[in-house]
Amino acid sequence: MTSHARPGEDSLIARFFAPLAAPGGLGLKDDAACLSPTPGHDLVLTTDALVETVHFLPGDPPGAVARKALGVNVSDLAAKGADPAGFLLSLALPADWTEAWLTEFAAGLGRAARDFSCPLLGGDTVKAKGALTLSVTALGEVPAGRMVHRSTAQVGDAICVTGTIGDGALGLLLRRSPAWAESLSLDERAFLADRYLNPQPRHRLAPALRTYARAAMDVSDGLAGDLAKMLRVSRVSGVVAADRVPLSPAARKAVEAQPDLIDRVLTGGDDYEILCTVPESNLDRFVKEADSVGINLSVIGHVVPGHETPVFRMKDFERRYDVGSFSHF
Amino acid sequence: MTSHARPGEDSLIARFFAPLAAPGGLGLKDDAACLSPTPGHDLVLTTDALVETVHFLPGDPPGAVARKALGVNVSDLAAKGADPAGFLLSLALPADWTEAWLTEFAAGLGRAARDFSCPLLGGDTVKAKGALTLSVTALGEVPAGRMVHRSTAQVGDAICVTGTIGDGALGLLLRRSPAWAESLSLDERAFLADRYLNPQPRHRLAPALRTYARAAMDVSDGLAGDLAKMLRVSRVSGVVAADRVPLSPAARKAVEAQPDLIDRVLTGGDDYEILCTVPESNLDRFVKEADSVGINLSVIGHVVPGHETPVFRMKDFERRYDVGSFSHF
Repeated sequence: MTSHARPGEDSLIARFFAPLAAPGGLGLKDDAACLSPTPGHDLVLTTDALVETVHFLPGDPPGAVARKALGVNVSDLAAKGADPAGFLLSLALPADWTEAWLTEFAAGLGRAARDFSCPLLGGDTVKAKGALTLSVTALGEVPAGRMVHRSTAQVGDAICVTGTIGDGALGLLLRRSPAWAESLSLDERAFLADRYLNPQPRHRLAPALRTYARAAMDVSDGLAGDLAKMLRVSRVSGVVAADRVPLSPAARKAVEAQPDLIDRVLTGGDDYEILCTVPESNLDRFVKEADSVGINLSVIGHVVPGHETPVFRMKDFERRYDVGSFSHF
Repeated sequence: MTSHARPGEDSLIARFFAPLAAPGGLGLKDDAACLSPTPGHDLVLTTDALVETVHFLPGDPPGAVARKALGVNVSDLAAKGADPAGFLLSLALPADWTEAWLTEFAAGLGRAARDFSCPLLGGDTVKAKGALTLSVTALGEVPAGRMVHRSTAQVGDAICVTGTIGDGALGLLLRRSPAWAESLSLDERAFLADRYLNPQPRHRLAPALRTYARAAMDVSDGLAGDLAKMLRVSRVSGVVAADRVPLSPAARKAVEAQPDLIDRVLTGGDDYEILCTVPESNLDRFVKEADSVGINLSVIGHVVPGHETPVFRMKDFERRYDVGSFSHF
């Protein structure tokens, strides 16, 4: 402790973060981390920043904030078919940070690192001028040449998505106590809130994705907008059966109570599920392998020729979400 | 352009940053970058964040801010003997950013990436709540097992430092128009100001460092404090001949005008030079190889047994800087 009665950066790192460091992190005592890549593999690299009030709220549990900061990056790796190898954290802390907050944050970060098999390799802690800002850079590995790209969808591929869609967006909406919340049980509300706070990256799907999928990305900015992005860079279009988009029981009840919530479900963001296209001939094996790692996979449509924004069809509607993409920027 | 008459994140990235991307950055159009590591090499990873008003000032030229954000990371790689391989940038932009600022920032970033042989691989741009905050993660490569550590200094090693010390700290002080500034020419003041704004990472020294040095780190928090850190983790001590610490003509003049500035020179930070220990038997070849890449190397002392903070000796003083380390935190 220094004379200002606050630990300096070095002691803060030694106390809260060094215990989490992987061997390659060298106890966070050197200028840099050292990692020996697996021979015959490519590195996959991604970085995502989270800002308080933009990406999470001041009262959110610190452990959940840490988990989300790592989870959104691991989700990107998973979508590329990459196995997590480690991450670096850059933390800009406002002057009013407390030991209790940082203790919970570090504990949540450690749990997430274990759950996602993605250890801490290094970091930097600086004084924020404004809101708490976190930036995570995550590294993953794929066998050389096997990264799953976003721009490689082909006409005839099935469009698939993992888990359920819209829970995170509804979980965020719930905080404003909307009328439709009344029709949900306490457990259902807690489920949606948790899906917003604790995204579950699908890293266990990575080996199956790189074996069977043709193109993939993670759904972070809304299913409709992200699908449009993926198909646009692949120079194709798509048809989605909106009633095959997988909804949780809680989300289904919410949409029954207020039918126009379906638009929010399809465009809302914060899903952190995997969206991919898969050749029909691989579909059975892909679904089976996903199932074997406990991940539910839904076939929601297929890739068609054309340049239009993909269409979402249901019995009584047909929609194209032209500006469906939700942006934090 | 969206209806708010501001580009969204995707178009901002496409316009300002995609033109800078290395091939592995995939035009910044995918979820992640892909890098094929050189066989037989380890990866060295470092991250450093810069916050406006903490690490740079609002009026600083945007191109210099970009260069510094990358340069401080490349300096860490260089100190580990690593050749730069690329970087990711996380940028939290306040709402009042201008196109002129971002254009200059991107141009400076592109120039720095070329000068440091460290191309852009990926990034994230988010809305800041408060000051502009930049976080860079840089990757480098060393032949397997050859990273130069901080904790490996040995008794008898020579203590060496590149370039000149204290210029950056004096350059920052100059902004407050101190009395000693009067004794400097305009050129000398410009030189010191530039040394603060435009650190010059010593990446060209990396091959010589990994061949000849025993331990190394970069001098970012002040020579005295950083030397104390390196020797402490190596469980040794050191003796430095303070009059052999290399000063630029401008810094020398400043210290002559106000002798107590020597403490600031030795503890001030923002040098981004390389501090290393070298076995005596390697010294001649190391100095010669540094010279061949245009980097001046000074032998300033040697490693001795003990656990005390290293001592700085001059004809009329002997100092130990117990809390010499300058911290941005």
